[in-house]
Amino acid sequence: MTLIKQLQATDEFVGFYLIKELEVKQTNSTPAKEYFDIVLSDASGQLPAKMWDVSQTDKETFFPMGLVKVQGLVQLYREKPQVKINRIRKVTPEDGVAIKDFIRSAPISPADLIHTIYQVMDSITNETIRKLVAFCVAKVDEKLQHYPAAKTHHHAYFAGLAYHIVRMLEIGEFICKQRPFLNEDLIKAGIILHDIAKPEEMIAQLGIVSDYSVSGKLLGHISMASTWITEAALHHGIDLSSDVVLGLQHIVLAHHNLPEWGSPVLPQIPEAVALHYIDSMDAKLQMVEDALAMTPETDAWTPMIRGLENKAIYKLNL
Amino acid sequence: MTLIKQLQATDEFVGFYLIKELEVKQTNSTPAKEYFDIVLSDASGQLPAKMWDVSQTDKETFFPMGLVKVQGLVQLYREKPQVKINRIRKVTPEDGVAIKDFIRSAPISPADLIHTIYQVMDSITNETIRKLVAFCVAKVDEKLQHYPAAKTHHHAYFAGLAYHIVRMLEIGEFICKQRPFLNEDLIKAGIILHDIAKPEEMIAQLGIVSDYSVSGKLLGHISMASTWITEAALHHGIDLSSDVVLGLQHIVLAHHNLPEWGSPVLPQIPEAVALHYIDSMDAKLQMVEDALAMTPETDAWTPMIRGLENKAIYKLNL
Amino acid sequence: MTLIKQLQATDEFVGFYLIKELEVKQTNSTPAKEYFDIVLSDASGQLPAKMWDVSQTDKETFFPMGLVKVQGLVQLYREKPQVKINRIRKVTPEDGVAIKDFIRSAPISPADLIHTIYQVMDSITNETIRKLVAFCVAKVDEKLQHYPAAKTHHHAYFAGLAYHIVRMLEIGEFICKQRPFLNEDLIKAGIILHDIAKPEEMIAQLGIVSDYSVSGKLLGHISMASTWITEAALHHGIDLSSDVVLGLQHIVLAHHNLPEWGSPVLPQIPEAVALHYIDSMDAKLQMVEDALAMTPETDAWTPMIRGLENKAIYKLNL
Amino acid sequence: MTLIKQLQATDEFVGFYLIKELEVKQTNSTPAKEYFDIVLSDASGQLPAKMWDVSQTDKETFFPMGLVKVQGLVQLYREKPQVKINRIRKVTPEDGVAIKDFIRSAPISPADLIHTIYQVMDSITNETIRKLVAFCVAKVDEKLQHYPAAKTHHHAYFAGLAYHIVRMLEIGEFICKQRPFLNEDLIKAGIILHDIAKPEEMIAQLGIVSDYSVSGKLLGHISMASTWITEAALHHGIDLSSDVVLGLQHIVLAHHNLPEWGSPVLPQIPEAVALHYIDSMDAKLQMVEDALAMTPETDAWTPMIRGLENKAIYKLNL
Amino acid sequence: MTLIKQLQATDEFVGFYLIKELEVKQTNSTPAKEYFDIVLSDASGQLPAKMWDVSQTDKETFFPMGLVKVQGLVQLYREKPQVKINRIRKVTPEDGVAIKDFIRSAPISPADLIHTIYQVMDSITNETIRKLVAFCVAKVDEKLQHYPAAKTHHHAYFAGLAYHIVRMLEIGEFICKQRPFLNEDLIKAGIILHDIAKPEEMIAQLGIVSDYSVSGKLLGHISMASTWITEAALHHGIDLSSDVVLGLQHIVLAHHNLPEWGSPVLPQIPEAVALHYIDSMDAKLQMVEDALAMTPETDAWTPMIRGLENKAIYKLNL
Amino acid sequence: MTLIKQLQATDEFVGFYLIKELEVKQTNSTPAKEYFDIVLSDASGQLPAKMWDVSQTDKETFFPMGLVKVQGLVQLYREKPQVKINRIRKVTPEDGVAIKDFIRSAPISPADLIHTIYQVMDSITNETIRKLVAFCVAKVDEKLQHYPAAKTHHHAYFAGLAYHIVRMLEIGEFICKQRPFLNEDLIKAGIILHDIAKPEEMIAQLGIVSDYSVSGKLLGHISMASTWITEAALHHGIDLSSDVVLGLQHIVLAHHNLPEWGSPVLPQIPEAVALHYIDSMDAKLQMVEDALAMTPETDAWTPMIRGLENKAIYKLNL
Repeated sequence: MTLIKQLQATDEFVGFYLIKELEVKQTNSTPAKEYFDIVLSDASGQLPAKMWDVSQTDKETFFPMGLVKVQGLVQLYREKPQVKINRIRKVTPEDGVAIKDFIRSAPISPADLIHTIYQVMDSITNETIRKLVAFCVAKVDEKLQHYPAAKTHHHAYFAGLAYHIVRMLEIGEFICKQRPFLNEDLIKAGIILHDIAKPEEMIAQLGIVSDYSVSGKLLGHISMASTWITEAALHHGIDLSSDVVLGLQHIVLAHHNLPEWGSPVLPQIPEAVALHYIDSMDAKLQMVEDALAMTPETDAWTPMIRGLENKAIYKLNL
Repeated sequence: MTLIKQLQATDEFVGFYLIKELEVKQTNSTPAKEYFDIVLSDASGQLPAKMWDVSQTDKETFFPMGLVKVQGLVQLYREKPQVKINRIRKVTPEDGVAIKDFIRSAPISPADLIHTIYQVMDSITNETIRKLVAFCVAKVDEKLQHYPAAKTHHHAYFAGLAYHIVRMLEIGEFICKQRPFLNEDLIKAGIILHDIAKPEEMIAQLGIVSDYSVSGKLLGHISMASTWITEAALHHGIDLSSDVVLGLQHIVLAHHNLPEWGSPVLPQIPEAVALHYIDSMDAKLQMVEDALAMTPETDAWTPMIRGLENKAIYKLNL
Repeated sequence: MTLIKQLQATDEFVGFYLIKELEVKQTNSTPAKEYFDIVLSDASGQLPAKMWDVSQTDKETFFPMGLVKVQGLVQLYREKPQVKINRIRKVTPEDGVAIKDFIRSAPISPADLIHTIYQVMDSITNETIRKLVAFCVAKVDEKLQHYPAAKTHHHAYFAGLAYHIVRMLEIGEFICKQRPFLNEDLIKAGIILHDIAKPEEMIAQLGIVSDYSVSGKLLGHISMASTWITEAALHHGIDLSSDVVLGLQHIVLAHHNLPEWGSPVLPQIPEAVALHYIDSMDAKLQMVEDALAMTPETDAWTPMIRGLENKAIYKLNL
Repeated sequence: MTLIKQLQATDEFVGFYLIKELEVKQTNSTPAKEYFDIVLSDASGQLPAKMWDVSQTDKETFFPMGLVKVQGLVQLYREKPQVKINRIRKVTPEDGVAIKDFIRSAPISPADLIHTIYQVMDSITNETIRKLVAFCVAKVDEKLQHYPAAKTHHHAYFAGLAYHIVRMLEIGEFICKQRPFLNEDLIKAGIILHDIAKPEEMIAQLGIVSDYSVSGKLLGHISMASTWITEAALHHGIDLSSDVVLGLQHIVLAHHNLPEWGSPVLPQIPEAVALHYIDSMDAKLQMVEDALAMTPETDAWTPMIRGLENKAIYKLNL
Repeated sequence: MTLIKQLQATDEFVGFYLIKELEVKQTNSTPAKEYFDIVLSDASGQLPAKMWDVSQTDKETFFPMGLVKVQGLVQLYREKPQVKINRIRKVTPEDGVAIKDFIRSAPISPADLIHTIYQVMDSITNETIRKLVAFCVAKVDEKLQHYPAAKTHHHAYFAGLAYHIVRMLEIGEFICKQRPFLNEDLIKAGIILHDIAKPEEMIAQLGIVSDYSVSGKLLGHISMASTWITEAALHHGIDLSSDVVLGLQHIVLAHHNLPEWGSPVLPQIPEAVALHYIDSMDAKLQMVEDALAMTPETDAWTPMIRGLENKAIYKLNL
Repeated sequence: MTLIKQLQATDEFVGFYLIKELEVKQTNSTPAKEYFDIVLSDASGQLPAKMWDVSQTDKETFFPMGLVKVQGLVQLYREKPQVKINRIRKVTPEDGVAIKDFIRSAPISPADLIHTIYQVMDSITNETIRKLVAFCVAKVDEKLQHYPAAKTHHHAYFAGLAYHIVRMLEIGEFICKQRPFLNEDLIKAGIILHDIAKPEEMIAQLGIVSDYSVSGKLLGHISMASTWITEAALHHGIDLSSDVVLGLQHIVLAHHNLPEWGSPVLPQIPEAVALHYIDSMDAKLQMVEDALAMTPETDAWTPMIRGLENKAIYKLNL
């Protein structure tokens, strides 16, 4: 089976793919005819495709996020490759293919990521902090295994959020060693909690965010996580005005650093200052790394990266 | 007894006043002598004062926020009146004066303000909303009777917060009549709750804010109020993801309108849009009204008003 | 006759409608054929429509802003309803339909709005103010009966400007009662004058702005209204440097509050501060109310509202 | 007589000077004694001065903006020269000194400046434009002979406004020759009118602005000049909506280029674009030239210049 | 031969033109057919054109920036003129046409522009400055004859950069006469050097910029020019820390005036202040002049001009 | 000998200290007497001091940055400790004290810091990069041993720059291990070079910056470092347009990330993105760590930190 990334003009091929997008469109001819404007994808990339003269049955059979077997031909359309679909059918259990093999996903398995997060959580020495973190993590438990970290900006794929957390924990471990005045428990807790409400802020399936939830729009994940800590403290009978509760809520509220970036308060404890830079460094470098991975080797520049002020990244020849 | 506002150069006077500020300073002579640099005040205004050659006993007797009886003389210093204190003593119970008569304060009594707030609260028809509001109000109960609404910007005096709420409730009542599509329960609740955490954000005595609290600095009153609603809902067994809880939290979070003004989310329900303008209109007009009240009749301009982009207000002659 | 708002897919219908937009387009077939790309509307809403194979006569018969009788069929195109026009003709006097019944318009009749405005104008007790206002109102007299208040932001419909003024006068009346230090004459005059030059700034027909006028672009309605007051004063022999003239010009110039929002001076009299908030509150709440009215009942969110930082409004279920 | 600029530490001197500032202060000794804290100036510069032990008569004799004869000694105070006044008296007619010789002033005589402005005004070929300009100039006639162009930013001295206009006219003449598509009449008129209302916006004496006028604060010189053009047109029976009136008002309104710099409209005719840059170039280069002139030759840097983003100017050694 | 600018609907014509843009597109018919979507241009303007049913040979024959002879018909498409190409062939040497006659270009010949620039360069009296300038000019020598000054903002045509320099030199000469405190050598050198690295920053052919170079993106023309001066100084053995080198580098680095406009330092020598305004005035007025030249006489407004905050320019009727 | 940090009110003491600041002032008595207003410091902190009745000899003996032996008394002045100097003399060689023991300084010795920097430099595998870095480091060689990294923002002490580099190298080493797609040579080189021109930008002695140099003001350290790389490449015969030169210049130019923060280009290679965050993280956390170190243990808040948006840091009690 040929990977999307390897398909080139004039190739005839058969393979399993995911319908990432599908729209029914009409030709401008009279009478107008209907066709599918499709985006086919697998874990290696995606390609536009057309299927002409679709029937009513076709329209009731094929939908976005469905796995299909396709026989097609790669043509050049406006200098870019495009698939002409000759035959298509839905996959059956006998095909033995699973949707998770067709989507972009973190380079470490969800199980391993979750395991690491729990391990770090268990290593928090301050029991109160540990309990508060555990309560919040439990709220998103299952979703932490597959949610992306954002809609498009960074880590926008299967298990992207957990991957982001794990990588940040590595930076956090380093920086606590380098600067022992930082409280390692707070750094660990802050990293795990800072985006913990994202699975409630966004509606995602298979790592792809389709929309923000109502509470995501009306409250935002930062305020949501802050109230979860209140909930956790009440559940465990922890004083709401204790410095532990205050500190964790502050780290979460301040992690975007400036009001115009979404934080209602500026960082005012050492660990909140650290967290903002750990978060930024991981998010920005991941954007760069992912953009490079998806750029053909022969291109000198990646596509523009929105999270980097719409700049592209250049590959130096050293 | 002469009011501060009426004292003029060359007046000799005796009266009761509040020491609003007091600093021990030293003259530049050799050897240096100590004197008091004082601000005397009553409800009508304030004046700088000097008391020369203070003794150790003086320094152990007189402090800021203390009531005193003063015999003095008004002199002109750099074209402005200044009191030279000739005699001073602390008030005694026999003097029959109370500190509350010497401070700036809302034009309606705290008891009446609180009564109105409770009355409106009781008129909320949606029981869930009413319970959530009542819980939050109970948290600041006693403080609501005397807290100012801000450190300096607006309603910065005794019972200023309650006065701000009551005046906003009047505007809210009007606007709900004018535009019946607004939910009056939400408007009432939003007005009462929007600044409800200010007494925890600031440390104030007699209407004068001396500082922000630790939680005020690390969380801010907006986030604090939002978590109080969570607390209230948990206390009353109300679903945290219900639209009632969501709506109230949203109104509170959005009432500063823009991120750069401190709101982590923009208004996205009608009542949140309304609340921002009810709040702004009341705060700004109160600043203007208060600045005019404190400006001598013969001045054409008020002092500069920080909350109005540092502009002064002009008194037209119509 | 079926209202636009009620038309659903597969409906066949006959009715009178307004051609709000009409473009002649060509199919991509060889040779290309011409068709009409139309927007049909009535007071309840609007729908896209296509009319295929149009003749030269058709092109000379049908134009934007014309009333037509249509026989058509509602189809689904890309999941949205679209009309296929089978027959169309221009309305004749016999049809007894008037264009004003097919356009969006303020909920109160222009006559009533104008009547209210004149009544308030006559109630201004300061004769000089009253004369200045009357002069400016006379300049736009007829246009005040039908002009919108803006191109798209708010009150963008027939008599929208007069409606905006009348609603603001209601708020103004309330706020003058609540805060008697405000000069009611200035509030009334300021409300009537603040946007009085808009009919000269914009070119509108039936409540729809097609463009800005040359003077609108080169001077802007704020500066225009200010010079009208000069004109009025000269006409009535009123001293140009009197506080009355100064005050009214200031209110008009300052009503956008900040330079970056178009005001060359910041509000510096109490009534100018009030006017800005009366104006904002009415404009923003009207945007919300109108957006809700045009949103299908089954939708939880309105479309995005440009004047509200591109946010949509959510309908809570309380 | 020694110029201020030439006075050095230990000099004993006698001369005529202007008291630019004078404050009565008190020593910290007990009892406090009064002294004068003075700024002495002439056209070459200024120096701080002290006069100890002043009498009641002294306080009734000496005031800011008075000419005096001083016998004094230059001392070093905190490494800077300061005058100790030993004897002082007011000038008498017999002294034969005039205040205008003691103030900073444009390098060309007011009479010559005014002459040039009138000459250019008379050279405007379009009669309508010429009349409108003449009317506005007549309104400030006498003041144009001595007003500064700004309070502190640039040309802040005697006849600074006329000097600014004349220098801009030179640039305008050049640019009209270089780019003949520009309308020279509009350029001339725009230059003369752009700041024409400044003498009404500010209150100045001898080239020193003490404050802004009420109309200056409430309307600003840009809006004032625009209404003057209306007044001029009405006076001469010129159509208010003619392109001549529109064009001149537009140039005046747009000359600050951006809303945040005070212009309610952006430049939209060629001459308005040109005027903004003619104005900026002249103002900025004059700031630089004046700062250099007042910097001692041995200093490598001028003082910071507020109108140049608070930067100082460096003198290169080429 | 008919100029593009003169072609009108229904004209049949034959002439030589430049293919400025060419895209191969497909009709929506089944099977799809290919056609050319073309922009034809000459020095007077440009027009969209379609050529239907193109062959494989056509696709291998015609490309952007090629000269062609066309026989065509002007049709109206959506109310705008569009060419239907009936016959087309590439030009041959016999046709005697040269590409430079078909492109937009400065109104003065490159040879004359270069001659002026060299003449001014030779008139620089300070030998060190002259050498540094000459070195940098030599680096772009040939390119200076044809490069535009920018991609779209201003002087975006053949020899636009040299034309920009020459016109600035005229302003520079004037301003040095008007304000003799300016160092004329620095003004001349600054003007010639300020954009000297643009030919390395951009990739252009025939006055049309297709892209920025890698070094243009990674360093920017301002930093590049600054390092060229270093290179020049090292080449000529001039002290890198001398005020001459420092001054020239500063002028180049500061010429965009503010960091947010691309200058890492603010102007801090008189000539740097002057240069910014000479540059701005020339660029902005050229935008206006060019926009007017390309606007049909019957239009009252030019198209929107990006470099003027997206405003259009109005043509007054005086 | 008592450390500054340990001195308390009423202490009489003798010790060696550094005169960090010294001003000759005059009392307000008549005749005025001169006294020293001094700041005494050692590595533990600083205290204000007064020395009354100073003689001409005193004024010729004591200066800022001089070491002295002091016998004094700690008094309370306005609630803060202040030294009254009874006896003072300059240190002599016999005293055996060295100025470096009295100043704030990096916690690692300059020799060790320099050794680490050279070691890392030598470990750069790409010879061209290594040569370029070595050339630039050689230019500031001696100064790298003692220069601070900034005037006040961060690392503003002896050897602060070298310490900043070394700590960043630690982070760089970690991040290259975590993300192997980063080029470690470029990261090392970028860290060493990013602030390498700071010793030429600022004038510092003993870790205290007194001013910026002329070239520092006119060019800025970012542009200076970029031209140094040009110089280095020319010296070593390395192609100026090679990707190595381009890459290093880009990293230096882009390290402030945004134009408004001083970078003329945005980061466009992976290592430039990384460098900005490595730099920020180290600078911000060092500010926090240093502020905490200088805050008395009993204070809950540090002083305000300018580089952290003027926020103070809170010490949680966990």
